[in-house]
Amino acid sequence: MKFVRFIMKNAALTNMPKHVEYYAKFSPSPLSMKQFIDFGSTNACEKTSFVFLRQELPVRLSNIMKEINLLPNRLLTTPSVQMVQTWYIQSLMDILEFLDKNPDDQSILGEFVDTLVKIRNRHNDVVPTMAQGIVEYKETFTQDSVTNQNIQYFLDRFYMSRISIRMLINQHTLVFDGATNPLHPNTIGSIDPHCEVTKVVKDAYQSAKMLCDKYYLSSPELMLQELNSNNRKQPIDIVYVPSHLYHMLFELFKNAMRATIEHHEASNSLPPIQVIVAIGGEDMSIKVSDRGGGVPFRRTETLFSYMYSTAPTPQIGEDTPTPFAGFGYGLPISRLYAKYFQGDLQLYSMQGHGSDAVIHLKALSRDSVERLPVYNKTALRNYKVSQEADDWCMPSKEPLDLASYKVAK
Amino acid sequence: MKFVRFIMKNAALTNMPKHVEYYAKFSPSPLSMKQFIDFGSTNACEKTSFVFLRQELPVRLSNIMKEINLLPNRLLTTPSVQMVQTWYIQSLMDILEFLDKNPDDQSILGEFVDTLVKIRNRHNDVVPTMAQGIVEYKETFTQDSVTNQNIQYFLDRFYMSRISIRMLINQHTLVFDGATNPLHPNTIGSIDPHCEVTKVVKDAYQSAKMLCDKYYLSSPELMLQELNSNNRKQPIDIVYVPSHLYHMLFELFKNAMRATIEHHEASNSLPPIQVIVAIGGEDMSIKVSDRGGGVPFRRTETLFSYMYSTAPTPQIGEDTPTPFAGFGYGLPISRLYAKYFQGDLQLYSMQGHGSDAVIHLKALSRDSVERLPVYNKTALRNYKVSQEADDWCMPSKEPLDLASYKVAK
Repeated sequence: MKFVRFIMKNAALTNMPKHVEYYAKFSPSPLSMKQFIDFGSTNACEKTSFVFLRQELPVRLSNIMKEINLLPNRLLTTPSVQMVQTWYIQSLMDILEFLDKNPDDQSILGEFVDTLVKIRNRHNDVVPTMAQGIVEYKETFTQDSVTNQNIQYFLDRFYMSRISIRMLINQHTLVFDGATNPLHPNTIGSIDPHCEVTKVVKDAYQSAKMLCDKYYLSSPELMLQELNSNNRKQPIDIVYVPSHLYHMLFELFKNAMRATIEHHEASNSLPPIQVIVAIGGEDMSIKVSDRGGGVPFRRTETLFSYMYSTAPTPQIGEDTPTPFAGFGYGLPISRLYAKYFQGDLQLYSMQGHGSDAVIHLKALSRDSVERLPVYNKTALRNYKVSQEADDWCMPSKEPLDLASYKVAK
Repeated sequence: MKFVRFIMKNAALTNMPKHVEYYAKFSPSPLSMKQFIDFGSTNACEKTSFVFLRQELPVRLSNIMKEINLLPNRLLTTPSVQMVQTWYIQSLMDILEFLDKNPDDQSILGEFVDTLVKIRNRHNDVVPTMAQGIVEYKETFTQDSVTNQNIQYFLDRFYMSRISIRMLINQHTLVFDGATNPLHPNTIGSIDPHCEVTKVVKDAYQSAKMLCDKYYLSSPELMLQELNSNNRKQPIDIVYVPSHLYHMLFELFKNAMRATIEHHEASNSLPPIQVIVAIGGEDMSIKVSDRGGGVPFRRTETLFSYMYSTAPTPQIGEDTPTPFAGFGYGLPISRLYAKYFQGDLQLYSMQGHGSDAVIHLKALSRDSVERLPVYNKTALRNYKVSQEADDWCMPSKEPLDLASYKVAK
């Protein structure tokens, strides 16, 4: 029996490239916030969701698997990236099992939920494992700007794809597990149709403060200001995934606190972290401002770089306390969360003063549509970028010798 | 005699493409702030400057003339762009006249200064004339994102080249006209080795305020804060071109004032414009913050677009009072001034609240080096950009019909 399973598994693996090729030909279907909510409304139909997901998940998995294969060979062959690839193949196989199953059979629907949970757990460590692959690659090969650009391009797409796949899985498993969330009875899966922004701000601040107090024995205060230009008396709320917003804000607060404390070591008082939450007809924005001394303008973009990330890689699985700084992937991943529903996250710093980070999200749920990478010729071309001459003059290292323009007397 | 001049001029015009080809093969030589100052120091040698400029000016002119020729034919053939092209050809010819002249002849040096002044005056209206060409082009042809991108790419380079050429001309003519500037005895040409930043901030604010009071009969106050982390007691100063800094700040103040007044029409009081000036080891930054209601995030980049500029084109040469809003080129040109010496200008807006604009400049003169476009294969490739598929999914206009995933019962 074991042997038969082995044979069958091997056969499936041999067929894998064919499946990936097939599903990668489809473009992913971005869902809007409204569609996510419809899935979880009273008319929610588990069968419809099942039939959608058994097609859409293979499409999203295959689109990004095509891009993993385009990584530089020396990165692709690291044990970490190999492991990630195995997980993707296994998960794709797991879902394909359901292709010919009957959606009217309740036990099939139950099995599907179990499979999704298994997939979610399998992929829990994808971010640190992929990060480990980059570390191994960096240790062996020189880092140049083209490689950095390629890896940035890939990881932004790869992690965004992962965020979207987990969103789909979470919605299906949370909505159709038959139970309501006792803590958040009004949420639809992971979506809160009335996500009160300042509540999440305060939650994220409190968590960062606890961590900060533990590490530094003090922490800056929070000054929070809310500007609802739509209705001055109402707190600002949007249709959103509170856990995504929390993730971004927690990251921004940790950064702001660390900068503030390290910049004011010598002083007795810490300047507060100022937060402004504002909403207009189109955007909901949150600005987190610190007076932590800022970073040089030249370095702003590298704070979002996966490859130039300087934080040490925590050991996966080890039972160490949560470090105050993580993989150094905090900012780029937070920016992906913001971009996932057509928003953005920007950082601007004034060296000698402090930094402002602004999260922009869509104010209206109809504008909140998934932003998904698609594998196509344009993507392929981006992996083939090579070093080319700059179209702006590079100032020479040596100062120009103007004397050489002197004519002989 | 007239006929002979005509013949000779025509011969020169016929040779023009050859000269342009020849000089475009050289890369422009970016000068550092230090080199600009050396040119104007007590050791200043007019002869050295002359010999440098009669080579460097043709190089900069020819490099950008190659790019003018790459414009879409329908833009290139507008009367405005044709006129600009004629000016460039004429100025290149004027300088080439000096190639075989003797630098030891004082009268030649004098003639050269006169020629530079003539060239500067000839090119006074290049910005509005080129803008007029874009307007004509826009009126006749549909605007698409690829054309917008091409024009943005070209004009950023074209105007930057112009800024740099005028800088070279100004330095030579100011330094070697034999007189010191009575108003600014310590400046070297247009450079102030101790440019006090807050003084320029106040000047620019006052000018914008005068204009604003005239148009709106009121204006917001200025709240100015200076943070010199290098030396708390000293005002922040840098080696810089005060007129460039003034240009940027005047633009930012006009925008901030207009937004503030229009957003608070109904109210009796206007929130002040806050300015923070800070310096660190690498950057000097100026933040101008208003509470003028902001703009949607989606529109931020279009504020820097030459093609999507919405301001009406003022009639050139007409004796109309200065309008409060100009060509709509204020922001992109200001950003070029900031970038010219390796800085930048960025705008961050929170819809429903207000906007922050930040100017980043290099704190150290050794980092302030001209940023110059160079004509090469990379540049050429950028003019050949064509419409390609997006590598991120475009959300479909029609919402995805999930019902289509339902299986027949």
